[in-house]
Amino acid sequence: MENNKLNKQIDFILEMDKLKTIFRKSFILNTNRRENDAEHSWHLAVMAIVLQEYSNNSIDISHVIKMLLLHDVVEIDAGDTFLYDENLTESKFERENEAADRIFALLPDSQCATFKDLWLEFETGITSEAKFAKSLDRLMPLLHNYYSGGKTWIEFNITKKQVLEKNEKFCDGSIELWAFAKSIIDKSVEKGYLTE
Amino acid sequence: MENNKLNKQIDFILEMDKLKTIFRKSFILNTNRRENDAEHSWHLAVMAIVLQEYSNNSIDISHVIKMLLLHDVVEIDAGDTFLYDENLTESKFERENEAADRIFALLPDSQCATFKDLWLEFETGITSEAKFAKSLDRLMPLLHNYYSGGKTWIEFNITKKQVLEKNEKFCDGSIELWAFAKSIIDKSVEKGYLTE
Repeated sequence: MENNKLNKQIDFILEMDKLKTIFRKSFILNTNRRENDAEHSWHLAVMAIVLQEYSNNSIDISHVIKMLLLHDVVEIDAGDTFLYDENLTESKFERENEAADRIFALLPDSQCATFKDLWLEFETGITSEAKFAKSLDRLMPLLHNYYSGGKTWIEFNITKKQVLEKNEKFCDGSIELWAFAKSIIDKSVEKGYLTE
Repeated sequence: MENNKLNKQIDFILEMDKLKTIFRKSFILNTNRRENDAEHSWHLAVMAIVLQEYSNNSIDISHVIKMLLLHDVVEIDAGDTFLYDENLTESKFERENEAADRIFALLPDSQCATFKDLWLEFETGITSEAKFAKSLDRLMPLLHNYYSGGKTWIEFNITKKQVLEKNEKFCDGSIELWAFAKSIIDKSVEKGYLTE
């Protein structure tokens, strides 16, 4: 283990293990267990491969996948911020930016900068790749909620209005997937998973 | 939901959720919980981004990542096959190939073929990308075992000889990572995690 660069990279990989202990509000289908961030990030990356044709703009899918694999790594320090928790959402960027600085600094310098840039690109959501990645990150909890009987929405008494507000930028990434998402939202109201 | 193609793709994405309930023998660090296949696949994909420079051959990293994201999906039907279980290993390919046929057939035809090819490429391990991906899939459980006090190795009374035999192709993907892995194996013997 004389290779100092490799040791730093291994330390980062070991640190990543902690993402498996950070839990989201969504439930795994047909279970009573909430999903963790590592599982979520994997699921989104697979979703990106499957649904890439629906991006509004031409995209480098490899770049989208990398962003999705890394977008929640900051939650190792900052924890999961529930989309509908307005207090936590206010301080989200600051907390996560600090986390990004600590966690990516475990890597050798050049990789640290690349990873931080990927995370920031996702957060700012300006590039075509970030827009599409963010749409997928919005679609997944809609699917999880709808197909698990609205469990999280009912628990937190979420309204259709809140869901529409939080998803207003969804169509920037994919008009087709947003149309699909709206059909899920409407059916969720019909079934009583979301209040009108 | 009139888009039949999109509906098939969403069905596949929902099916993927089951990978979060398939458990491996490895433990998450600093916990008493075993790792599931979805977390494992995510961790390997991140590892591939971080360690790509150590591949023996020039590789398309995006292809490696896609293979790693999908390599264990067949375990939804076939279950996890512990590397050191010789009986299960004998029937592994047949069971997993059947699983691949069922699971990837949920996708539209062209994607079904692409995904099956990615899975087969990983399994056969001939391309440079597959060789590197397989080396990472070998390195991760070594790290997990070493940094969790040899828990799984001790539980199943694994010997250094068994580990070396199961990892004989590791160096085909990365000579440098194999040198690192060997140092981990030697230190595991010293610490009593592996029997000589």
